[in-house]
Amino acid sequence: MTLKMTADDLKAFLKRDFTQVADDFEFVEVSERQVIMGLNASEKHLRPGGTVSGPSMFGLADVCAYFCILSRLGPVALAVTTNCSIDFMRKPAPGRILCRMELLKLGRALAVTEGRLYSDSEPEKYVARASLTYSIPPDASGVK
Amino acid sequence: MTLKMTADDLKAFLKRDFTQVADDFEFVEVSERQVIMGLNASEKHLRPGGTVSGPSMFGLADVCAYFCILSRLGPVALAVTTNCSIDFMRKPAPGRILCRMELLKLGRALAVTEGRLYSDSEPEKYVARASLTYSIPPDASGVK
Amino acid sequence: MTLKMTADDLKAFLKRDFTQVADDFEFVEVSERQVIMGLNASEKHLRPGGTVSGPSMFGLADVCAYFCILSRLGPVALAVTTNCSIDFMRKPAPGRILCRMELLKLGRALAVTEGRLYSDSEPEKYVARASLTYSIPPDASGVK
Amino acid sequence: MTLKMTADDLKAFLKRDFTQVADDFEFVEVSERQVIMGLNASEKHLRPGGTVSGPSMFGLADVCAYFCILSRLGPVALAVTTNCSIDFMRKPAPGRILCRMELLKLGRALAVTEGRLYSDSEPEKYVARASLTYSIPPDASGVK
Repeated sequence: MTLKMTADDLKAFLKRDFTQVADDFEFVEVSERQVIMGLNASEKHLRPGGTVSGPSMFGLADVCAYFCILSRLGPVALAVTTNCSIDFMRKPAPGRILCRMELLKLGRALAVTEGRLYSDSEPEKYVARASLTYSIPPDASGVK
Repeated sequence: MTLKMTADDLKAFLKRDFTQVADDFEFVEVSERQVIMGLNASEKHLRPGGTVSGPSMFGLADVCAYFCILSRLGPVALAVTTNCSIDFMRKPAPGRILCRMELLKLGRALAVTEGRLYSDSEPEKYVARASLTYSIPPDASGVK
Repeated sequence: MTLKMTADDLKAFLKRDFTQVADDFEFVEVSERQVIMGLNASEKHLRPGGTVSGPSMFGLADVCAYFCILSRLGPVALAVTTNCSIDFMRKPAPGRILCRMELLKLGRALAVTEGRLYSDSEPEKYVARASLTYSIPPDASGVK
Repeated sequence: MTLKMTADDLKAFLKRDFTQVADDFEFVEVSERQVIMGLNASEKHLRPGGTVSGPSMFGLADVCAYFCILSRLGPVALAVTTNCSIDFMRKPAPGRILCRMELLKLGRALAVTEGRLYSDSEPEKYVARASLTYSIPPDASGVK
């Protein structure tokens, strides 16, 4: 699917509309195939033992799905998560966690994404998988 | 199912093992039927516009499911979330959000919970629903 | 939510639009609170050992969610399943399986349902739980 | 992951243990990367209008996940589905439907798979996506 926003566009959007968490995330890849974002885990993202918490992984997947949709939809905002199914599969290694997200469907009313989370140091050992559905506001999709 | 931990037991456990987030949550009901917990939303839980963020709701459901299982299993710790499916249905009203969680299955290896989230001021308008599966470490379940 | 179709209305709808499977299902309760449907398991619904198969339970939940939505929406047809999350918790007892479904949200574009499946002989031991989202065609919801 | 069963092994297993549905399914690819199975849709799999029904797609995903796990675990049987999350994204084209399944985790107690369904004639337009968790009986996993 054609990109309507670049990594820089998305970054500006993130800084403006997600002020509180903008510094937690970074864009690693924004391409027609996928969007990859990283979570710079700090104290607040960790559970006892030092591993990234479930809600932090959910947050990374949610943000990554949002920007994956936006990159193809344009800066319309207001898409909202309606469903997420997430499987936690392994304890993450210490350090940065990445999420690679694909857009599987961009319909008039719904967008469906699917992605995998992994530690920077072990890209082949998935920490989690997640699929998310977003509701797209009427007239924003550009899909006829 | 018989309770093996009271609200006070769970509270002590929360304070000790979830130091960083212990003050965010409170126990509203711990009974054989269900566990209800509240999220005292502060700045960090909010999205632009002042509504509680998706990851914060996920976090509330996750913690509530954990303590729902623990209350019936005893203080064994180490149960870990393996799957969560969550549907976001309405924008929460300002103020406290509650999660009411039921334990549907407590097996040897897996526990399944299901719950609903709602604003304190509108208990009948569900903000979200969530089902979570926890993996129970061997020999912790007490189920033969 | 007010009912717009009775059990008899739904039954006629089932016979007309789901000819191939109409005899598999029956309506046990159609009320404002919930819709309960039963699956009359025959040879084709069983797995080796004689228990009802996963796809048959999925099918029961799917049909029950559909008619739960229809009973409140009126005979508009064309609502389609967009997501289902289902947890299989216990092996069903021999005999009839029931599904009790609640409508949690009826929005302009989406309807969310949640239900539990159980054997007729053991109503308190849930066999499965399922949540389903249906997409509602524009102008069918009657919700402004 | 190393294969412990070939396509022929799996086919024999399918014929023996899933007698009732064995003819509905065929193996298209059994490799270390993935397992692809096809559903030969007949009258019983169709909804009014001639499209493959949701339960039939669920059944294809379920069987494909099962044999994907078995191919890596060996002929131990008795793995059971504990969770499935499925998103239906497009109406299938007439004709054969395929499911491509990957094994994301093979643990001691749980196996997690993820796959996509598509029509034979439109392999890039996904009809559905599904993630499934299977519970593995103790001592069957071979994972220490």
